[in-house]
Amino acid sequence: MTTPEVPAGAYLDHAATTPMSRAALEAYVAEAGRPGNASSLHSAGRAARRVVEESRESVAAALGARPSEVIFTAGGTEADNLAIKGIFWGRRRQDPRRTRVLVSAVEHHAVLDPAFWLAGHAGAEIVLLPVDDDGRVDLAALRAELAEHSDEVALVSVMWANNEVGTLQPVRDVVRLAHQHGVPVHTDAVQAVAQVEVDFAASGVDAMTVTGHKLGGPPGVGALLARRDLPIEAVLHGGGQERGVRSGTLDVPAIRSFAVALAETVAARPERAATLAALRDALVAGVRAADPEAVLRGPDPASDDGAAARLPGNAHFTFPGAEGDSLLYLLDSAGVQASTGSACQAGVPQPSHVLLAMGVTELDARGALRFSLGATSTRHDVDRLLAALPQVVERARAAGLVTGGFRAGGAA
Amino acid sequence: MTTPEVPAGAYLDHAATTPMSRAALEAYVAEAGRPGNASSLHSAGRAARRVVEESRESVAAALGARPSEVIFTAGGTEADNLAIKGIFWGRRRQDPRRTRVLVSAVEHHAVLDPAFWLAGHAGAEIVLLPVDDDGRVDLAALRAELAEHSDEVALVSVMWANNEVGTLQPVRDVVRLAHQHGVPVHTDAVQAVAQVEVDFAASGVDAMTVTGHKLGGPPGVGALLARRDLPIEAVLHGGGQERGVRSGTLDVPAIRSFAVALAETVAARPERAATLAALRDALVAGVRAADPEAVLRGPDPASDDGAAARLPGNAHFTFPGAEGDSLLYLLDSAGVQASTGSACQAGVPQPSHVLLAMGVTELDARGALRFSLGATSTRHDVDRLLAALPQVVERARAAGLVTGGFRAGGAA
Repeated sequence: MTTPEVPAGAYLDHAATTPMSRAALEAYVAEAGRPGNASSLHSAGRAARRVVEESRESVAAALGARPSEVIFTAGGTEADNLAIKGIFWGRRRQDPRRTRVLVSAVEHHAVLDPAFWLAGHAGAEIVLLPVDDDGRVDLAALRAELAEHSDEVALVSVMWANNEVGTLQPVRDVVRLAHQHGVPVHTDAVQAVAQVEVDFAASGVDAMTVTGHKLGGPPGVGALLARRDLPIEAVLHGGGQERGVRSGTLDVPAIRSFAVALAETVAARPERAATLAALRDALVAGVRAADPEAVLRGPDPASDDGAAARLPGNAHFTFPGAEGDSLLYLLDSAGVQASTGSACQAGVPQPSHVLLAMGVTELDARGALRFSLGATSTRHDVDRLLAALPQVVERARAAGLVTGGFRAGGAA
Repeated sequence: MTTPEVPAGAYLDHAATTPMSRAALEAYVAEAGRPGNASSLHSAGRAARRVVEESRESVAAALGARPSEVIFTAGGTEADNLAIKGIFWGRRRQDPRRTRVLVSAVEHHAVLDPAFWLAGHAGAEIVLLPVDDDGRVDLAALRAELAEHSDEVALVSVMWANNEVGTLQPVRDVVRLAHQHGVPVHTDAVQAVAQVEVDFAASGVDAMTVTGHKLGGPPGVGALLARRDLPIEAVLHGGGQERGVRSGTLDVPAIRSFAVALAETVAARPERAATLAALRDALVAGVRAADPEAVLRGPDPASDDGAAARLPGNAHFTFPGAEGDSLLYLLDSAGVQASTGSACQAGVPQPSHVLLAMGVTELDARGALRFSLGATSTRHDVDRLLAALPQVVERARAAGLVTGGFRAGGAA
């Protein structure tokens, strides 16, 4: 196997994955050479268990949760699957009428796909909650759905921040409405934790997904935070680790590394958020200057209300008359790495369900491009994008829109 | 967080987990600092994807499989869950009558528990195939079950080597019988790969579980090998990675590290197996000399047939009149780390289902102790055990058997 070279350039795809921090990697290495399965009873096993439990305390403290509320998983997708399926099964076991699963129409596929799988395999009814033009969930629709089907709702899942357009969701309002009917709320906070304050207890949610590789930790590790009184069943069965809810040998080095990265991220977050917002503002202003036709999606950060309503590190545009794919590849050739922001499912290109739910036309959705900033982002990255953009947009427009099927792609 | 100190001593619990090799850790570190989500379309993403695909080719080559048959997972438990549930759902979708799941009575909980979950949640009927005194599956029982319920069997799962007593299973015979009825076979080869030759294609199995941390790779990564014509549905839903069967951001550094460790292990395996067998023979002879009452479980390695019928790195004994737990803790105090070899499910001690299935009485099963050797094992480890054992057994016998509930514990 040869080692691939990553070209130097402007990495503007931190929402897909962001590099591991030095401290996180050092923590991984420190644990990786040791023997000891955290379920083993001898001293090496107990030492591994202590590392896991100290990491659990650290993760809990960073997120405003109790250690006993932290269930370590292999990442965000697994945590979302555990939340949607596990709470559905747990609630239905308590009351067979509870078959309705309410999810916002702009959730990540890691929430949507488990929900629709439950519809096909376990008799669930999926209700997609509509969103407004900025991608914010419609609370009136949630209120009406809860009022009409109070006794049939198993759970509500609304993400903390959208992965494509960066819109923050009114999670506390969702919780307030759902709890009036005794319905638990799950939130996917994968995109939020590195950039805005996230407090599990203060938010009132019953379950929350976080993951390592979006905040400077390793891939392959994450957690579902879940209140102890939440009925939840396992998705992965076996050795009974993680209070029987998540079986599998505990990944001690990754868990420790994740805890280190999370603590580091939370400590740096206020200052980093301001830095990212300033970079984002420069990026948005520059893109608008370079292409007056470009349409920013999600709340407008140029207004105070808008800036408070979205992630500081995200800027999402559609470029009329250009293919997002063409923009992505042309920018990549110029050393700028971005994403169309929409999911490429099993090689079948499709328009972003997020943009369509926001009322964007299929035609406009084709020109989508997401720029996402992270801990290592600099003004140089933004400048490099802005220097390349005018010619890239011009060339993409000249290439025109591909007739026939929609073409798009990306990650997370 | 403080760094725990692992006491120097004899680590005889490689079946629970074995340390990462230097090459595997270096491979992890080499990948971990890079940005790039393997699903992203830009150059960093494509570089990450190349690492994954090269690793997939390497894993396939090491195991006698095709690259397209490798589905990366977060480890053995997830791969077993995917095999049992995924094949059950896939086969039942083709034919709703196929609800019977045949598993040996000595499978790991990562196979048994998903099967029993299917019984509770999806109408599966679980058939536990009996084993003989050495823990080898009863082929006549399998033949009879297949003959009687040919059209109702979804799958058969029989492990390659047992994790507690080290018995190798007649996997090719199981395949031959099952395929006569068109029934697919899954095997959990987690314990086998580092010690005996494992060839996916030559074995004829339709699906096989492997994992990193049992062979010098990192925890938190593994694979299910699955023939392309095997009907299999996803357990984790989302972004559609791994041909839609296993969603979740690919853990590039762990996958690369796993591939490096596996290649290293397979290259070293013939020589290592001989080394382990010699150490194991010394260990077995020494234990028998130290305590003539100790009963070796599984095939007797002192005979040629017996030696060929079990893993070279495993030795499992019961010590009449002693608690396995007492033996474990007393040995640990003497710097020797072993396992009772039985599962400790959610803190509830229970006798080993493996030993009970082999016809061992509950009373005898209480004195179980597993010694497992690996790549870093030396004659010093064996000598240290043998030096400590006489006094440990004497003290454990003096403490006697705890009346009332059974007490045992361990990992993997």
